[in-house]
Amino acid sequence: MRLAVIPGDGIGPEVVAEGLKVLGEVAPDVEATHYDLGAARWQRTGELLPDSVLDELRGHDAILLGAVGDPGVPSGILERGLLLKLRFELDHHVNLRPAKLYDGVTGPLAAPGEVDMVCVREGTEGPYVGNGGVLRRDTPHELATEVSLNTAFGVERVVRYAFEKAVARPRKHLTLVHKTNVLTHAGSLWSRTVEEVSTEFPEITVAYQHVDAASMFFVTDPGRYDVIVTDNLFGDIISDIAAAVTGGIGLAASGNIDASGTNPSMFEPVHGSAPDIAGQGIADPTATVLSVGLLLDHLGRPEQARKVNAAVAFDLSTRDAGQPLRTAEVGDRLAALA
Amino acid sequence: MRLAVIPGDGIGPEVVAEGLKVLGEVAPDVEATHYDLGAARWQRTGELLPDSVLDELRGHDAILLGAVGDPGVPSGILERGLLLKLRFELDHHVNLRPAKLYDGVTGPLAAPGEVDMVCVREGTEGPYVGNGGVLRRDTPHELATEVSLNTAFGVERVVRYAFEKAVARPRKHLTLVHKTNVLTHAGSLWSRTVEEVSTEFPEITVAYQHVDAASMFFVTDPGRYDVIVTDNLFGDIISDIAAAVTGGIGLAASGNIDASGTNPSMFEPVHGSAPDIAGQGIADPTATVLSVGLLLDHLGRPEQARKVNAAVAFDLSTRDAGQPLRTAEVGDRLAALA
Ligand SMILES: CC(C)[C@H](C(=O)O)[C@@H](O)C(=O)O
Ligand SMILES: CC(C)[C@H](C(=O)O)[C@@H](O)C(=O)O
Repeated sequence: MRLAVIPGDGIGPEVVAEGLKVLGEVAPDVEATHYDLGAARWQRTGELLPDSVLDELRGHDAILLGAVGDPGVPSGILERGLLLKLRFELDHHVNLRPAKLYDGVTGPLAAPGEVDMVCVREGTEGPYVGNGGVLRRDTPHELATEVSLNTAFGVERVVRYAFEKAVARPRKHLTLVHKTNVLTHAGSLWSRTVEEVSTEFPEITVAYQHVDAASMFFVTDPGRYDVIVTDNLFGDIISDIAAAVTGGIGLAASGNIDASGTNPSMFEPVHGSAPDIAGQGIADPTATVLSVGLLLDHLGRPEQARKVNAAVAFDLSTRDAGQPLRTAEVGDRLAALA
Repeated sequence: MRLAVIPGDGIGPEVVAEGLKVLGEVAPDVEATHYDLGAARWQRTGELLPDSVLDELRGHDAILLGAVGDPGVPSGILERGLLLKLRFELDHHVNLRPAKLYDGVTGPLAAPGEVDMVCVREGTEGPYVGNGGVLRRDTPHELATEVSLNTAFGVERVVRYAFEKAVARPRKHLTLVHKTNVLTHAGSLWSRTVEEVSTEFPEITVAYQHVDAASMFFVTDPGRYDVIVTDNLFGDIISDIAAAVTGGIGLAASGNIDASGTNPSMFEPVHGSAPDIAGQGIADPTATVLSVGLLLDHLGRPEQARKVNAAVAFDLSTRDAGQPLRTAEVGDRLAALA
């Protein structure tokens, strides 16, 4: 397995080290190449994602990313120039965000019930395309636009991926989340696509919810969801709510996937670089280790993925809440369990 | 007070009756005129909002709406043709959504702490403008767009309203919620506007959060918010999360406000017409009564508003959870208390 590793900034390198520790335990054939990208590089050289690096990344089977960002970098620079650029250049049209409430994890809800859902978020369209502009900037007549682009091609492939996920899960349920009553143009495309693709998956029950209602039910009744398919921006929001109710982004893993296999897919914890706790060895590497699980699953190594996930599940169920967490200790425990 | 009343469909007329009961108690000068709009009228006549009705509505001091909708009406018809049309025609640029966790109310959170926030959502711009289209419909090359329009004029007036709300509240804190790192064009306009207007309100502390992060903190730490100002679509989503954590949309009130006073503002419970429980006299009218409170406040009758809100607060703190709720009884109790 040729793995490109982007440790990034802040706690990124710390959690990635533990992810690689666990990965090495279950997949002895990993050849990791590290790439220096992120806030530090930009601050040093002004470079975000040089074409040569992008080309090299393409030569790998997958990418593991820690986190990038620093308070010294203006908002938007790393997002548009690095993170979103990777998603768009590598055609990461599926943004996979599982949210499971593990035994032993206390979330914010009084009575969450069993929660085990997967958000399948579109990754290369919608309001994320950067289409829009500003007219008459800094005048009382300023106008700013953002254009959400949605194509049959783009919606169909992510919807199909979501149905395939649902087929592989016991509950066989899929919920489309959108705002079809207001965003009628894009909403119509999404609804019709789900309807059409659903005819190929008669074993899947399909539901629809407006994004505002879903955001509420994620809090009041998250257990009702199995697979969710949604637009790029709605997915950004609701997958974070799902993370919040299942213990926070310290545990949230994600995959940026090119389901066609043409480009390497990228796996990363949802949390950021957390500069406030960087360097102290107290970041929780669990989300990174779960991202390694998604990576293995994506590369067709379900047995190795199962070992990683089982290690996390066991570790979480036996963690001592009174004990302060040490990044390397969690990694050691997970590596030993995997 | 010349009040236009749109009872609407389903439980709409039931909750509006109680709202009027309480309103009549504190404001004896109400002259209410009822307007028949909603799913039933559309199904009967094909009419949504005739120009003549819109003209009549303009002649009132305020509008009280119950809820509209019926499973027999295709999604989008009433939204675009009636609800959003009212907001746009009457220039309801402030969509006010308070969320307070009242004593006696059990929400879904294990440890919510004190929650008392007000979402000030923009109401006439953003992705709600209906700008967009579909190209090559029903072909593999279909393209659907949605355009978010944001103007200096539109953003500035709602931001200013939010600052004024914040000044009138004890904590004097305002959070801008947007997604400036991805929606850089609109995000820039919103950020610059908040920054500019903030110079006129030195007593207000200002924070910024991305909508995904805010959605998370609404669940994990809702007590940190005071006034929130945000875009139309983000406001739709996050105000529903706020409603969920403070006891659900059964308690959520809203105001659609033309802050210039040119047009009548409209007040309504956030919940829908709930056809499943309509006609049984078991709908909770509390959100409607709280909407009456917002209405009174907007019309410059703070003392009457205070009475209504105090009645609700007292009633909620003494409700017997074991006792099935009767719509008219709640209204009677609130009227007696107000
Ligand atoms: C950092 C940002 C561009 C990104 C997004 O909005 O997609 C993040 O919030 C995420 O969810 O991965
Ligand atoms: C019914 C719908 C058009 C509306 C909206 O999206 O604004 C509703 O969700 C609301 O929040 O008032």
